[in-house]
Amino acid sequence: MPSFLIGIDLGGTNLRCALVDENQKIIARYETDTRAEQGPDAIVERLATGVEDVLRQKVVDRNDVLVIGLAAPGPLDGRNGIVLKAPNMPGWENYPVAEKLRAKTGLRVFLENDANAAGWGEYVAGAGRGCENMVLMTLGTGVGGAIIINGQMLHGPDWTAGEIGHVVVVDGGRVCGCGGKGCLEAYASATATVRRFTEARKQGWQTSLNKEIVTCADIFDTAKGGDNLAKHIVAETGRYLGLMAANMANLLNSERCIFSGGMIKGGDLLFDAIRKACAEHAFPAPGKRLEILPAQLGSDAGLIGAAGCALVALGCKSI
Amino acid sequence: MPSFLIGIDLGGTNLRCALVDENQKIIARYETDTRAEQGPDAIVERLATGVEDVLRQKVVDRNDVLVIGLAAPGPLDGRNGIVLKAPNMPGWENYPVAEKLRAKTGLRVFLENDANAAGWGEYVAGAGRGCENMVLMTLGTGVGGAIIINGQMLHGPDWTAGEIGHVVVVDGGRVCGCGGKGCLEAYASATATVRRFTEARKQGWQTSLNKEIVTCADIFDTAKGGDNLAKHIVAETGRYLGLMAANMANLLNSERCIFSGGMIKGGDLLFDAIRKACAEHAFPAPGKRLEILPAQLGSDAGLIGAAGCALVALGCKSI
Repeated sequence: MPSFLIGIDLGGTNLRCALVDENQKIIARYETDTRAEQGPDAIVERLATGVEDVLRQKVVDRNDVLVIGLAAPGPLDGRNGIVLKAPNMPGWENYPVAEKLRAKTGLRVFLENDANAAGWGEYVAGAGRGCENMVLMTLGTGVGGAIIINGQMLHGPDWTAGEIGHVVVVDGGRVCGCGGKGCLEAYASATATVRRFTEARKQGWQTSLNKEIVTCADIFDTAKGGDNLAKHIVAETGRYLGLMAANMANLLNSERCIFSGGMIKGGDLLFDAIRKACAEHAFPAPGKRLEILPAQLGSDAGLIGAAGCALVALGCKSI
Repeated sequence: MPSFLIGIDLGGTNLRCALVDENQKIIARYETDTRAEQGPDAIVERLATGVEDVLRQKVVDRNDVLVIGLAAPGPLDGRNGIVLKAPNMPGWENYPVAEKLRAKTGLRVFLENDANAAGWGEYVAGAGRGCENMVLMTLGTGVGGAIIINGQMLHGPDWTAGEIGHVVVVDGGRVCGCGGKGCLEAYASATATVRRFTEARKQGWQTSLNKEIVTCADIFDTAKGGDNLAKHIVAETGRYLGLMAANMANLLNSERCIFSGGMIKGGDLLFDAIRKACAEHAFPAPGKRLEILPAQLGSDAGLIGAAGCALVALGCKSI
């Protein structure tokens, strides 16, 4: 009986593979550059190399691997294993990655959206354990989302559900990368947080953070040091996220709202603002129910979740 | 084998009962004033009278009735059949209406939120037939909502899910009846539409609609006659609703978004604006998928849906 899974997290910059055991623990890892410019076929070769590598590390036979779960960015057709488009990876248009990787490895491959994979990872092995209804928001260049309802990932008929980052919070507001206006992502991603900071600085707000190129981590560090502008910007990011957490509470009556991504290192400074805004906007019963938590697994969530989603696609809850 | 259902729609002004057959058709009706001021026990008496009346109309024995479905407003605990609070009905605080009505009628009673019942009615017998994923927005004094995912009503652990009217669309915007700011309901309910119109008129906008007390129907009629202010107000209402339809498409990848309530008589004038705004804000795939439709059943949706929800609560999909 096969008793291992392989999880892959394919990003525009790095690709990572993991061998996952029946307790949803990662027991071997492989990481390398994606080299997106080489195109999809070359990347599939690199993924297959990663698969071989993690098997070799633990002397596991491929017959003992049940399935590969592959998390990838961009709009995709998970049912058919096709990446429809990957914004930062040239050549990924209607690319049948699951079939290609299966041909290379001899293993079944299931494809999942990267935010969904991260959400599922937290659900089975991280901050979402023990609940049945949760949402995840991933905070980075954009704001990704995953919605789990009654223990099931919400995919929708086009496999596009969960775009929490593209719910409009400010009618007619800031232009978003998606072309829309006023999306959560345009206010509360790490990128948007940096943009709001640099705009305010340019407008003459005083701050001790004066270097030209600023990261979101710089802003959080400066805020922790007591800088008023940085504190204001972080509080605003938290307020937008809390508003959306409240929207999710009122809409879905979720038990947990989990935030992931580098920004969560902001800790109480960020989470206090999120919780305050959520409490102001959510209805009493769902607001009381909702726990707002940082993710626990870091970038492992995508690996564990990709493997776990593949398992579910096979009709299994555990190995 | 019992082969009839009873659906009840309890509102602050009227209460209505229906005998529903196995084809989800209403075959007998009863309607009377709620007389909310008489308190909950008196209302339960009136509901029981309604039940007797519809049975008598068709000479149906109560042993041939499988279950009563009761749709009621306000936050409620459907699992335990308790209305937690009903804003327009004095004395309804933690009132165990299902148990009380069962004692009076000898029939099992299931309680459902009125917007959910309307949504389920459209789903099984109206504009939602044949899909598996839909949302309903009811447009009246407020904006109610129902969310159906993979053929199941979304209740959430507190039975509060589906509050589409209290998703914030304008951060820091108009004060809503819920105490929050910028909720959809504060912009796009029938009440809010009237308020936006009268405010604009007070500010000196020219309009041919000059009577002091204006209804939403007046505004739609005047808009159809070509009045610029009325047209603008209707278009704005549609734009807010379309924005929320797009939010639902991006979040849930629903197949249909159905609007109910008197306002839908606005027809193309309203629906064109809804569809336009939705197309502007929804992502391509879920936006293409989503059909935006008027409800088909009018106030029968709540009766049919209350009966249908009770059937589902019993574990049956049909009689």
